[in-house]
Amino acid sequence: MPAPALLVAQSGGPSMVINQSLVGAVLEARAATDRIGAVLGARHGIDGIFKRDFIDLRAPSDEQLEQVAATPSSALGSCRHKPTPEECAELLNILQEQHVGYFFYIGGNDSADTARILAEQAQARGVPLRVGHIPKTIDCDLLGNDHTPGYGSAARFVACAFRGDDLDNRALGGVKINVVMGRDAGFLTAASALARQRPDDGPHLIYVPERPFSPDRFCAEVSDALARFGRCVIAVSEGIRTEDGQPVAALFATERDSHGNLQLSGTGSLGDYLAKLVREKTGVKRVRADTFGYLQRSFPGIASPTDSAEARAVGREAVRYALSTPADTPAATILIRRKDTADYAVEFVPAPVQTVAKNTRSLPDAFLDPARPDVTDAFVRFAAPLVGPLPPAALL
Amino acid sequence: MPAPALLVAQSGGPSMVINQSLVGAVLEARAATDRIGAVLGARHGIDGIFKRDFIDLRAPSDEQLEQVAATPSSALGSCRHKPTPEECAELLNILQEQHVGYFFYIGGNDSADTARILAEQAQARGVPLRVGHIPKTIDCDLLGNDHTPGYGSAARFVACAFRGDDLDNRALGGVKINVVMGRDAGFLTAASALARQRPDDGPHLIYVPERPFSPDRFCAEVSDALARFGRCVIAVSEGIRTEDGQPVAALFATERDSHGNLQLSGTGSLGDYLAKLVREKTGVKRVRADTFGYLQRSFPGIASPTDSAEARAVGREAVRYALSTPADTPAATILIRRKDTADYAVEFVPAPVQTVAKNTRSLPDAFLDPARPDVTDAFVRFAAPLVGPLPPAALL
Repeated sequence: MPAPALLVAQSGGPSMVINQSLVGAVLEARAATDRIGAVLGARHGIDGIFKRDFIDLRAPSDEQLEQVAATPSSALGSCRHKPTPEECAELLNILQEQHVGYFFYIGGNDSADTARILAEQAQARGVPLRVGHIPKTIDCDLLGNDHTPGYGSAARFVACAFRGDDLDNRALGGVKINVVMGRDAGFLTAASALARQRPDDGPHLIYVPERPFSPDRFCAEVSDALARFGRCVIAVSEGIRTEDGQPVAALFATERDSHGNLQLSGTGSLGDYLAKLVREKTGVKRVRADTFGYLQRSFPGIASPTDSAEARAVGREAVRYALSTPADTPAATILIRRKDTADYAVEFVPAPVQTVAKNTRSLPDAFLDPARPDVTDAFVRFAAPLVGPLPPAALL
Repeated sequence: MPAPALLVAQSGGPSMVINQSLVGAVLEARAATDRIGAVLGARHGIDGIFKRDFIDLRAPSDEQLEQVAATPSSALGSCRHKPTPEECAELLNILQEQHVGYFFYIGGNDSADTARILAEQAQARGVPLRVGHIPKTIDCDLLGNDHTPGYGSAARFVACAFRGDDLDNRALGGVKINVVMGRDAGFLTAASALARQRPDDGPHLIYVPERPFSPDRFCAEVSDALARFGRCVIAVSEGIRTEDGQPVAALFATERDSHGNLQLSGTGSLGDYLAKLVREKTGVKRVRADTFGYLQRSFPGIASPTDSAEARAVGREAVRYALSTPADTPAATILIRRKDTADYAVEFVPAPVQTVAKNTRSLPDAFLDPARPDVTDAFVRFAAPLVGPLPPAALL
């Protein structure tokens, strides 16, 4: 009997380094010639399994794989599809038919939950399948992790964008609002703080979903910043919520994504709403709003080296763990834990996939200024090594 | 009598390389110790002259100046202020009071026109003032130029953004609309075409202000692209106009800038309008719109090397020309002309400032596909050396 096949797929929103994880897993699998037969990729996540749309990942050369690793977005394609129990049964049938003994799903907490369900059903049916989750999310919101692969690079884009945009605002003045991705967690918006080099650098105000948003308080805080700095640059999470917990975007957004969630990205409506509010309430004439949108997760050429290396490592470690543990080991994810050392260092820790499935984490209180809409120095110390040094901005 | 002072200022929208021009002019001026006394910068364009808000540009070290040169946005600050004849008289009085014998204004066609008026009034009043214009505009729309300093770097941002966003769209599908800066000229939107490596790479449709925009035809073209590619990435100039010449943005935008122009940037409304149109008319569920906004002109770390070098050169050449020609030489700008050589090369040609003042140029017909909303190979050959090689995108 030939060695079982290994199948890998990507799910959810792409990131700049999700292909590093793919290539990390594939290279490790290709090296295990005695344990693993075919190395397959499913196109567009589990949708590709239903369609039997597989590609042979032993075919590309190492050099080709390295080029893919350095390319943003999900090279296998992605999906946002949470399978029903019936669909899981069908998936398992197809995996058996394809002699798949190892299945790895690269994605966020929804993908982890899909991996969990598949593993449970496989066990219940006595199907010999090892399932692993390889973490990915620009939102940095997986439980049990210090941070997640994908976050450092998206945070680098956000920090660079704010560094440049703050210079733009210095030149022409007024109020500038930038809307940053993050439905439930403000980690990415918080990364705007890394743009600052000087006490008067923007962003001057940072609004995250973890703190209730009040339009009146917002306008007062903008007025205060204008009085202090003569201008104002603002970072806002797309997921900010009113005092009663409703997304601010619910005031005007109506489109929903395939999970039934309110569409927050790919629209400028929140930024435009806030700009109108500032214009009407503060009387400032020059108010502009940009929504960073999908560039945050797909812009080529600026991935964080640390993030790239860690994304590669979690892919590699997921396969290594599956190959080095007994067949009845429960489905695992790979956690990133920061070591308690002076210089930045991490370790990769296998853990039950339940650790990260379904639920998400938020910015801890220690990262949020209790008095003002801002982050703390503790957050900057947390995020800086993940993002790496930024291009310096010199003033006259 | 001490040698006259040289004053330099920046105007209009910032770019990633406008400080290269500033530093090019300043280094050339500092070297001319026998001809030029003080080297001054006015903060926020001519507004800084009215306020006598000058800084000493002999003070920074060469190293400090090089750091400023590599920093996006206008280090002196900018303004959007076209002086009245009365204000010009006041400006000349202040320049005389400060012993300014040379004034250089870095900016687009409006700044060139300000330079022209100042020079004419100086001549009429017998004030010994040499005025020069140093070109800058990300829109590439100055007459008489092959291209303008600032364009290559903004075009590089746009091309990189589309390369990454096209990968994102490959992963998750649907229709993606990206709105690019450009009120009257489509050069920057056209640069999205440089993102393509393969026949099915996006952008699949490119809409510029030079061609009338029809919502019905737009929806039909999106449907066609969806049928061909199974997905669709679209580049749209913020300045697209309807058949009767009205900006499409006029359908919903109401804010105006300080020139009385409709505010096109710093709002997501055009993208949201187009996304709604596509959703309603084509029935596609996943339709997203991003507006690249101010990041296009301010993002640090991705300036085009060619653009940076040319921006430096026009600043240097403007001062050099003023110092090497008779005192009664009319106010000049520096044009960039492309040499007719196999390898890319340019020459810097002084010309009367009237050449570039007031009016702007559009994308020539040779750069626009007559049959489809797209650019021609001739445009790609034009723009590629200005932008430089992009990070490659590898597919599986």
